[in-house]
Amino acid sequence: MTEKRDFISIDDFSNEEIEVLFVIADKMNQLLHRSHGVLAGHLMGSLFLEPSTRTRLSFEAAMNRLGGRVITMSDAAASSFSKGESLADSVRIVSSYTDLIVLRHPQAGAARLAAEYAPVPVINAGDGGHEHPTQTLCDLYALRQTKGRLGGLKVILYGDLKYGRTTHSLALALVRFGTDVLCIAEPGLELPAYVRERLCAMTGTVEQGIRVVDENSVFSGKERQALLYCRDPQAWGIEDDRLKLDGVHCDAIYVTRLQRERLPKSETTLAQALPPIDARFLAHDAFVDAVVLHPLPRVDEIAHEIDGDPRSFYFRQAALGVPVRMALISFLLGHEMMRVERAKPRIFEERGKKRCQNPNCVIVSEGEYLLQRVWSDQEDAWHCIFCDEVL
Amino acid sequence: MTEKRDFISIDDFSNEEIEVLFVIADKMNQLLHRSHGVLAGHLMGSLFLEPSTRTRLSFEAAMNRLGGRVITMSDAAASSFSKGESLADSVRIVSSYTDLIVLRHPQAGAARLAAEYAPVPVINAGDGGHEHPTQTLCDLYALRQTKGRLGGLKVILYGDLKYGRTTHSLALALVRFGTDVLCIAEPGLELPAYVRERLCAMTGTVEQGIRVVDENSVFSGKERQALLYCRDPQAWGIEDDRLKLDGVHCDAIYVTRLQRERLPKSETTLAQALPPIDARFLAHDAFVDAVVLHPLPRVDEIAHEIDGDPRSFYFRQAALGVPVRMALISFLLGHEMMRVERAKPRIFEERGKKRCQNPNCVIVSEGEYLLQRVWSDQEDAWHCIFCDEVL
Amino acid sequence: MTEKRDFISIDDFSNEEIEVLFVIADKMNQLLHRSHGVLAGHLMGSLFLEPSTRTRLSFEAAMNRLGGRVITMSDAAASSFSKGESLADSVRIVSSYTDLIVLRHPQAGAARLAAEYAPVPVINAGDGGHEHPTQTLCDLYALRQTKGRLGGLKVILYGDLKYGRTTHSLALALVRFGTDVLCIAEPGLELPAYVRERLCAMTGTVEQGIRVVDENSVFSGKERQALLYCRDPQAWGIEDDRLKLDGVHCDAIYVTRLQRERLPKSETTLAQALPPIDARFLAHDAFVDAVVLHPLPRVDEIAHEIDGDPRSFYFRQAALGVPVRMALISFLLGHEMMRVERAKPRIFEERGKKRCQNPNCVIVSEGEYLLQRVWSDQEDAWHCIFCDEVL
Repeated sequence: MTEKRDFISIDDFSNEEIEVLFVIADKMNQLLHRSHGVLAGHLMGSLFLEPSTRTRLSFEAAMNRLGGRVITMSDAAASSFSKGESLADSVRIVSSYTDLIVLRHPQAGAARLAAEYAPVPVINAGDGGHEHPTQTLCDLYALRQTKGRLGGLKVILYGDLKYGRTTHSLALALVRFGTDVLCIAEPGLELPAYVRERLCAMTGTVEQGIRVVDENSVFSGKERQALLYCRDPQAWGIEDDRLKLDGVHCDAIYVTRLQRERLPKSETTLAQALPPIDARFLAHDAFVDAVVLHPLPRVDEIAHEIDGDPRSFYFRQAALGVPVRMALISFLLGHEMMRVERAKPRIFEERGKKRCQNPNCVIVSEGEYLLQRVWSDQEDAWHCIFCDEVL
Repeated sequence: MTEKRDFISIDDFSNEEIEVLFVIADKMNQLLHRSHGVLAGHLMGSLFLEPSTRTRLSFEAAMNRLGGRVITMSDAAASSFSKGESLADSVRIVSSYTDLIVLRHPQAGAARLAAEYAPVPVINAGDGGHEHPTQTLCDLYALRQTKGRLGGLKVILYGDLKYGRTTHSLALALVRFGTDVLCIAEPGLELPAYVRERLCAMTGTVEQGIRVVDENSVFSGKERQALLYCRDPQAWGIEDDRLKLDGVHCDAIYVTRLQRERLPKSETTLAQALPPIDARFLAHDAFVDAVVLHPLPRVDEIAHEIDGDPRSFYFRQAALGVPVRMALISFLLGHEMMRVERAKPRIFEERGKKRCQNPNCVIVSEGEYLLQRVWSDQEDAWHCIFCDEVL
Repeated sequence: MTEKRDFISIDDFSNEEIEVLFVIADKMNQLLHRSHGVLAGHLMGSLFLEPSTRTRLSFEAAMNRLGGRVITMSDAAASSFSKGESLADSVRIVSSYTDLIVLRHPQAGAARLAAEYAPVPVINAGDGGHEHPTQTLCDLYALRQTKGRLGGLKVILYGDLKYGRTTHSLALALVRFGTDVLCIAEPGLELPAYVRERLCAMTGTVEQGIRVVDENSVFSGKERQALLYCRDPQAWGIEDDRLKLDGVHCDAIYVTRLQRERLPKSETTLAQALPPIDARFLAHDAFVDAVVLHPLPRVDEIAHEIDGDPRSFYFRQAALGVPVRMALISFLLGHEMMRVERAKPRIFEERGKKRCQNPNCVIVSEGEYLLQRVWSDQEDAWHCIFCDEVL
């Protein structure tokens, strides 16, 4: 018996593991209709305690494509599910029925908690505003499908980078693979501080606050504030903090919608200030080879007129979620091996009586039974093992 | 690769295709328990954005009986499904996970729209008050099971013919097969005008407003208003607009309940004026060989006392929904062939800026991205391609 | 063709049948991952018209483990399910799609009614506050797993014995197998009168109202009211209605939570008066070999500190629900035989116009179509065939 693996954070897989996983996904993509015997006799518990129809259907499609079976609890039943029970108990019970748990939960750290109590592998399908790592896998896979590699690229993250949480893990993963990231956020919706700090630490540079200048009118001639994360800022030809778009050969634009349902009430009237991605936008020389990615659903940040453009990859990106999840499930259930270096496991320790103060952390709503533990990558910063916030 | 087929309207299949489909259904009915390998590896998306438990379970039973798999989104998740997304986008995403889409949607024309954007076959499982064509297939199949044929029969449609939308497609289909239809509606709940017009056009006669006279007290001796659609009114022995029930040999009575949930508020107090179908009703000579059909659920328009009568076929009719849907799914997924003449595809054209005004049409809620197109069977009437209303 | 069997009440199976069923469950437990071909081609209808996520998932896991398929209607769709239809009609329709029905319903007797109208086997997955017989099977199976037998044991039922309905069937079943039952209830939440009467009749003794004395402080030294059901009260060493806990060798403690959601409003402030089961509780000599069982979810009546104690069996008990239900489903679908004496079928007769007055009985909400029948085990007490209340 080998140790069970979970997939709670994109950090749980090394770059090498992600690369191998994508080779498996390639195979799955070719065998969509012929792989239905692979996981016969295996049962997945699809537990969605928060609405997420697309993600749920994508996971359930993946398991069915592999010949496995699915039992489902979707959010409508969530209120009756707990009956005052701890999440640890709920997970112990349902995981005893199945071979694999896919969990969506409104609280940060819920999937990490589930992984501790379930004897079977757990996949994080989104834990509040914290992580959604299989979306990151899909985003990376789509980029690799179109560009052939994950490193050495220039990617623009564009839109709501604060509440559009998929950009957080993606930025970190892209930089990990050696790709440069230029962040053009809606005003006030920049990446969170802890993500920005980690990006700087990983690139070994300081954050570059720059103004993107466009002489061919994409941004109506106005300068745009942006943040750049790269190992070699010189190579971008920045002068006086101004970056000329003309000189950039962009590989991909990753667009997110304004997450109106997550905005605090005070910000719900926030206007979308960035221009939409449309034919005029893509006509710029900088984007001649740039694929357009989006986690979907889109509202109007991408114009319908470019749906047929060969650079528009967002619908195929959604479709690729199935083979990527097939590969992940197959690996976690032991039907695919990855003989490469693993991500280093986090080192953690117990932390006396001091407990995480993040109101969205699962430890707050769960009772005293749950021990607070912390992890660190540096000596002086200790993070909650569940929600990753600094204690 | 052959062109994909969808099933959005009963008009999408020719009479010959329906006949062949029913031969396949006969086979499915015999193989219910032994056909579970046929569609192994195929995945159906069951998308019910409006409640319809019976129809959903019938489709999901059919797919499972064939060995295929199902992923389900039922109405409880519908409100969170769109997140401001267009229906076209939703359909593109979910259809990329699956091999077949079954769609129930509250708006007229939604299934037609879905079929345009999905790369896989789409089945209309009810689009608002517009069409519910698989119910019509089941109704026709039940009639064929009991009478051996679909043409040359005399069928009474009885009850709420306005909001009981299953009667609309059924009336048109029956007349198409050469069966005569006598409509006895609850007062004020006659067939809609456009259905009546098409019935007249198809039979080549004018609408017959008649009074059904019953000398053996089925209707308590009172005359009933009725409308007759047939190719040869003489053959019914009508005198002075009066039709004697005694002289009619009725093959089937198709009963519908008062659709109280669809009635406008002003009509919710509407009394049910027609007598229920009970033992006394069926004792009349006209009904000695008449099977009783009903799309179910029934409330009290059919008395429980006749549930055991050999002419009561409504429960078996419901059961036949599974083999009929098995046949349809098998055909659309290319596992059954029909080498007969196809229904003529509708000819359509774009229609400038004028858009459909039907408030229930899907084009009204969808954005500008959706082009208005129209179709016609006559030169002078142009119908919305989605909801079929005249523009 | 043999007569179909249903499983509506624990009384539907004889002791011998239960013993054989558990031998099948042993086999299922070993074959969890290898039994997926057994019921290929069979379809279960999972109809939950009241919330019950754990029970539903356990049944659906069982059917999938056997290779069968499942179609599901969970409570969110319940309100739209009936549309004024009788339960008999709903059952006739859905059962015509499937090979087996699992029904959860808010009204007492609903499963019995369903079994009468469905041509396929029906399993009662809980009918209001009436019965939940598969939970009883799981409880008995867990006891047998840990103690090797079902008779000749000493079991304490502990907690809310009134609204915690699982204790009702369990107490009756344990006494049927020859096990002694000591009931320690929260004040005011004793077993219902009809259960107590049947327990006395079965043991052939009068009810023993006793005080449990504890000299080693489990109950903080206070005496606790209790009721004892056994064939030989002498053997318990009771003196002056006082039972010394020290002298009892307890085999199992079956704990239930306060069912706050079922308490009448006047009782919702009811305090939990019994001490929780914790390390101190289990340290008593009487419990050195006592396994702790619980139908789950638990709230705080069992302390988290004993979760790792080898006597704590409640999570494994939940897991065993799957093989038990696999055995039951296999038997009802004819894939396992039990060549032992059957439970005697209840003798019933029609009962004129007098109808059951239990407001929770299914006959009250269903219409006149439903005939009242009664059954009896004694001459002078006639029980409603649906809810078992005395008419």
